[in-house]
Amino acid sequence: MKLATLRSGEPDGRLFVVARDLSACAPAPVATLQAALESWQEAEPVLRALAAAVEAGQAPGLRPFRPEEALAPLPRAWQWLDGSAFASHGALMAKVFGISDHAEGRPLMYQGLSHRFLAPSEPAPFRSEADGIDFEGEFGVITDAVPAGTAPEAALAHIRLVVMINDWSLRVLGPREMKTGFGWVQAKPACAMAPIAVTPDELGEAWNGGRVHLPLTVDWNGARFGAPLGGAMGFGFHELVAHAAATRDLCAGTIIGSGTVSNENYREIGSSCIAERRGIEMLDEGAARTGYMRFGDRVRMETVAPDGRSVFGVIEQHVVPFAATPA
Amino acid sequence: MKLATLRSGEPDGRLFVVARDLSACAPAPVATLQAALESWQEAEPVLRALAAAVEAGQAPGLRPFRPEEALAPLPRAWQWLDGSAFASHGALMAKVFGISDHAEGRPLMYQGLSHRFLAPSEPAPFRSEADGIDFEGEFGVITDAVPAGTAPEAALAHIRLVVMINDWSLRVLGPREMKTGFGWVQAKPACAMAPIAVTPDELGEAWNGGRVHLPLTVDWNGARFGAPLGGAMGFGFHELVAHAAATRDLCAGTIIGSGTVSNENYREIGSSCIAERRGIEMLDEGAARTGYMRFGDRVRMETVAPDGRSVFGVIEQHVVPFAATPA
Repeated sequence: MKLATLRSGEPDGRLFVVARDLSACAPAPVATLQAALESWQEAEPVLRALAAAVEAGQAPGLRPFRPEEALAPLPRAWQWLDGSAFASHGALMAKVFGISDHAEGRPLMYQGLSHRFLAPSEPAPFRSEADGIDFEGEFGVITDAVPAGTAPEAALAHIRLVVMINDWSLRVLGPREMKTGFGWVQAKPACAMAPIAVTPDELGEAWNGGRVHLPLTVDWNGARFGAPLGGAMGFGFHELVAHAAATRDLCAGTIIGSGTVSNENYREIGSSCIAERRGIEMLDEGAARTGYMRFGDRVRMETVAPDGRSVFGVIEQHVVPFAATPA
Repeated sequence: MKLATLRSGEPDGRLFVVARDLSACAPAPVATLQAALESWQEAEPVLRALAAAVEAGQAPGLRPFRPEEALAPLPRAWQWLDGSAFASHGALMAKVFGISDHAEGRPLMYQGLSHRFLAPSEPAPFRSEADGIDFEGEFGVITDAVPAGTAPEAALAHIRLVVMINDWSLRVLGPREMKTGFGWVQAKPACAMAPIAVTPDELGEAWNGGRVHLPLTVDWNGARFGAPLGGAMGFGFHELVAHAAATRDLCAGTIIGSGTVSNENYREIGSSCIAERRGIEMLDEGAARTGYMRFGDRVRMETVAPDGRSVFGVIEQHVVPFAATPA
């Protein structure tokens, strides 16, 4: 099942069920995705029946799906916890930023800005090019309510949806915040989300071990930048959910991120963020030569399934300066 | 003006205006504090008129204020950013946990769990005494919508309410998360808030320089533990708000915390968390002898104004194990 949230003038938009090939959609009887997640046991069968009707071309209110009408599937969320589960990325970043790796066999995770997720085609606003503007391609999951203390095996069943995320990062600000031990505030403005959230079963064999075994394809200003595979996560999403829930309840609609998708063979397969390419350049050439993004630059992300279908739809954003504000 | 949110069966409760001496309250015409903050320009005069009527004993629906009916003023919030603005606390913690101080003249801040704030008298649920259960007395502010890039001087006007917070912390888990650079997830379960949120003017001369110049009194199992003064913050709340908003918009209802209230003369005035007392013991006696909290332990926090009135009402919680969950 594929779900999207369309612009309605309300902060949480309106929930739609979308056809597998993204050609059509129909309004859901539950108004918002957040509401559906809060009563998933009741909402899911209703939404799946509607999804079948959409595939059959018989759903009430059926209409073409226009990605430009889409908000993030959750335009805001009560909780966004982002992991860093790809070891090849972590090792490179440690070298680039001179940070020691203190993970000690546990997932790395921070809590990020969740009151706003940018729409998939929304311009991304930043203070200054000098902050080191970078994209980060990630997969993510959305849970229903997870009780504190839930073990990884049980956590898997709480993963209700899978999403694709552009986790915007400011690389000049990141290391200095990281060195405080407090995690990132200024270095992590709002993320964007691809328009389609899918149930795990929709991924078929590509959902295995709590991982998305598909490439996340990134283009920067029209040129292929990378297509790393999501299956290389050092921890599965169920383990990230359990880590997050070790000492707290997770509310319905909690979003958990994989961290930057990265593979050991990044020299061949490319990267999903600029910082990683710069790290490779530092290792191979002694210095980073690729700069971060400039205002006007574009980034595009997509995950295409073996059958050629776009799984989550497309993130396509350009970067802009945010409006000046009163001193 | 003093505001409280009373239990109603709804997740955000119902907003009430409370008398200065906390004796009485009346239902606000705006249903929730979040809604009031989202339209503060319109809501504030209406709420202030009601507050005058409450003081005069003439408000519609006037009734006794019963603290046991109170939730946190914001039972959930889209964003909770906690600073660590008291230098004497930071220096001690650095020694206790072997963490270097990388603040470099900037405020320290992390993003914390905000989908749930415990009610002022709600038992605080934890996994295990072995996690090092500790209270942290803090002051906090609640903002309306703050545009990205707002300077400290302008940020002051966005501070609409002042609150008192018990920022629960798990000290055994804290240092290992801090060493990753990602900040705290497992070490920071849900905070509690005192029942009353006050407008800054309500503090009179005690609100100065974006700081609360009043003691935060902490009792542990009925014995005085500390009464440090809020005026010793190294950064004012307006500077913390500006730091938080440097690269992001803050949504209405964003809560910004001071970090553990701490004074240089902590040996005389006491502390607002156990970790600080343990740090003093380590410095003075070579080893910490005070243990962290045990299940059943109680903590009480209050701020009393020079006129003898309780400013924020009382936080009084005891600690309990959280319910076992399926494996």
